[in-house]
Amino acid sequence: MDKVGNEMTTKEHFLNVLESRKSIRIYDENVKISKEEMTELLGAAIKAPSSVNLQPWRFVVIESDEAKSTLAPLASFNQNQVKTSSAVIAVFADMNNLDYLEEIYGKAVELGLMPEEVKENQVPAIRGLLSGISNQQNKETILIDGGLVSMQLMLTAKAFGYDTNPIGGFDKENIAEAFGLEKERYVPVMLISIGKANEAGYKSYRMPVEQVTEWK
Amino acid sequence: MDKVGNEMTTKEHFLNVLESRKSIRIYDENVKISKEEMTELLGAAIKAPSSVNLQPWRFVVIESDEAKSTLAPLASFNQNQVKTSSAVIAVFADMNNLDYLEEIYGKAVELGLMPEEVKENQVPAIRGLLSGISNQQNKETILIDGGLVSMQLMLTAKAFGYDTNPIGGFDKENIAEAFGLEKERYVPVMLISIGKANEAGYKSYRMPVEQVTEWK
Repeated sequence: MDKVGNEMTTKEHFLNVLESRKSIRIYDENVKISKEEMTELLGAAIKAPSSVNLQPWRFVVIESDEAKSTLAPLASFNQNQVKTSSAVIAVFADMNNLDYLEEIYGKAVELGLMPEEVKENQVPAIRGLLSGISNQQNKETILIDGGLVSMQLMLTAKAFGYDTNPIGGFDKENIAEAFGLEKERYVPVMLISIGKANEAGYKSYRMPVEQVTEWK
Repeated sequence: MDKVGNEMTTKEHFLNVLESRKSIRIYDENVKISKEEMTELLGAAIKAPSSVNLQPWRFVVIESDEAKSTLAPLASFNQNQVKTSSAVIAVFADMNNLDYLEEIYGKAVELGLMPEEVKENQVPAIRGLLSGISNQQNKETILIDGGLVSMQLMLTAKAFGYDTNPIGGFDKENIAEAFGLEKERYVPVMLISIGKANEAGYKSYRMPVEQVTEWK
């Protein structure tokens, strides 16, 4: 028996995760993801990179019946996901991300991940740079970061044996306040329903690489 | 010998990929990723989900000396990445994403992935919905999609044995035109340098899950 030949490589395992991630709209209502496992999942997601490591992502894990009732009218086209999922994770991006600059870089020094002098140079430089950008530029940057963390979260969920559906069609005007967050500060990125699939899901078409890529 | 006990699970392989992805700024200049392998990498990345599957991502793979010379002054804080990487992938988001709606949904029908009647319902509904949104809303949606595909690309690169660095600090005003793209149409998302690491890279601090998450 050729053991090596039977073992999948990391690349193969990874591509299996990636390719088996499909948008799932109906979940097994009996499957509940524990707070411990959800924390592990989110802990993997937040290893994502972000602009100057400001980690602007904020999550609301909507899992109780009461919270799902609050969500339902705000996600009217997606009632199956709200009803049958283990949870719906509302991903927000924090406009006040710069408030955490000192803390994040200070912790990096404290943990020996960054020399003190690097922090002493970078913190004022970043503060100077980011204080000068418009609200709109700030928003666009943190939405991109929100996309990064959301993708990593969906792939992690799949690797943990769960399924997801990214939902962009919801009431972005009212979602923050509905969950007690300041509307001007917390910008909605997307909802991600998560649970164990109770349907096969669809394969969907992608334009080929050649169509969306130029080589220079 | 307990073979099963020695084999890593998919989850472990996946988390290894995720956790070993670090921002790498200096690459082995001798390593060139072939066009074939880059196509495979991008092909995995574009399996990412996007808003109503419009796949607004567009890539410019900057790999020739000439193209890197064009890029260098536009990415002045990131000369090491430009110089030593195998390529820098400029990720753009296409404001005219709706132009591809009919093609994408038509191909899905042609390939048997979507029933004709679903397409006939969805295409006008989506067109109606998206024709009504502002340019700014369109831009924000496609930037989030750009974040999704960028994260999947960086993880795929790591699974293939390559390293990356997401770069947000570059001349967003001039990058599209420098590579022959219409500036009003193609919105820059980020640059991603890619190659084989020639440095260890840094670990960086993340705020704990409890700090960025509420449970409802």
